[in-house]
Amino acid sequence: MTSNNSRLDQQITFILELEKLKGILRATQPIGLERRENSAEHSWHVALLALLLVEHANQPVDPLRVVKMLLVHDVVEIDAGDTPAYAVVDRVALQARERAAAERLFGLLPEDQAAEFHQLWREFEARETPESKFANALDRFMPLLQNYYANGGTWAEFGANLDRVLQRLRPIDDGSTELWRFAQTLLDDAVARGLILPGQAT
Amino acid sequence: MTSNNSRLDQQITFILELEKLKGILRATQPIGLERRENSAEHSWHVALLALLLVEHANQPVDPLRVVKMLLVHDVVEIDAGDTPAYAVVDRVALQARERAAAERLFGLLPEDQAAEFHQLWREFEARETPESKFANALDRFMPLLQNYYANGGTWAEFGANLDRVLQRLRPIDDGSTELWRFAQTLLDDAVARGLILPGQAT
Repeated sequence: MTSNNSRLDQQITFILELEKLKGILRATQPIGLERRENSAEHSWHVALLALLLVEHANQPVDPLRVVKMLLVHDVVEIDAGDTPAYAVVDRVALQARERAAAERLFGLLPEDQAAEFHQLWREFEARETPESKFANALDRFMPLLQNYYANGGTWAEFGANLDRVLQRLRPIDDGSTELWRFAQTLLDDAVARGLILPGQAT
Repeated sequence: MTSNNSRLDQQITFILELEKLKGILRATQPIGLERRENSAEHSWHVALLALLLVEHANQPVDPLRVVKMLLVHDVVEIDAGDTPAYAVVDRVALQARERAAAERLFGLLPEDQAAEFHQLWREFEARETPESKFANALDRFMPLLQNYYANGGTWAEFGANLDRVLQRLRPIDDGSTELWRFAQTLLDDAVARGLILPGQAT
């Protein structure tokens, strides 16, 4: 069935493809649910975090740009799969898979939108702009809350020590020093309670 | 664990409460998945639809406002539950439950944000502003796609005839005549294929 509008048809094709992100499972579990989180509901949550926590960004940010970035940041996982934060992976091979996924998926859209969304994804990945730094901070802050309130979650599952956790979470500070300060109190408590194995801080 | 910042503590409390929306199941199934959709992943999808389809809105809209509305439009279901579009329900009792839910849930936030998000939800429900009309159009358009591509989905499940389906979907036209035109071609085909029972159009 087509719409007699080829632009709308391309948009609908992409929208239908997005359904698959609901089937991409992350290592993290939503607090209180006995199942893994999928990347679509995670993306909803962090996009809403952006609206709620924008006042804590280190630099002024365009909230619409942050939200757009967070709504699309995981779309490449439809082809490339989710990579747990604390898994040991070949980063070079992963990047190649994700780049190919971005080409194919955003390429379903009309040319101008393909370019816009592809660029938003690249900006998110590069962590250079204020919007990207803040978006990445939120993408790391939320699983911290989830692990902390679920007795260690993926820290325990992957046996991540404090070194590894700090390496993963320190970019929170680049986006929001206020959130990083709070993150540190949670991490101190998580180590004290044995939810994270001690490790020489890098 | 608190942040030494009571404003941030209130925001975190709300963010943790939002986890529950991932456990609220809708009648609809994501295309290709053998399970019901939850309201969090649905909210992600329609927020992204807003970004992708904004050019088809009948009136100029502020995209950030539409996205905000769609990210929070179902949060009340944490307390009030999801109400399937084609279920027979007591609308007055439902509205009372949803209003109480909005009071409690948005009331977890700092006062200024509580007022802002509560107002966004009321605006969505009222379908009066251009942003609300467009957001509601998308919230109805997406399940149409899902039902159409899943052999009738909730139309079949609830035995909804064309009257009932048109009553539910006609507000798409208020937000986007372009999307409504496409919706009508899908509905005509769905009736022809027996996915929707015929019914005198109202």
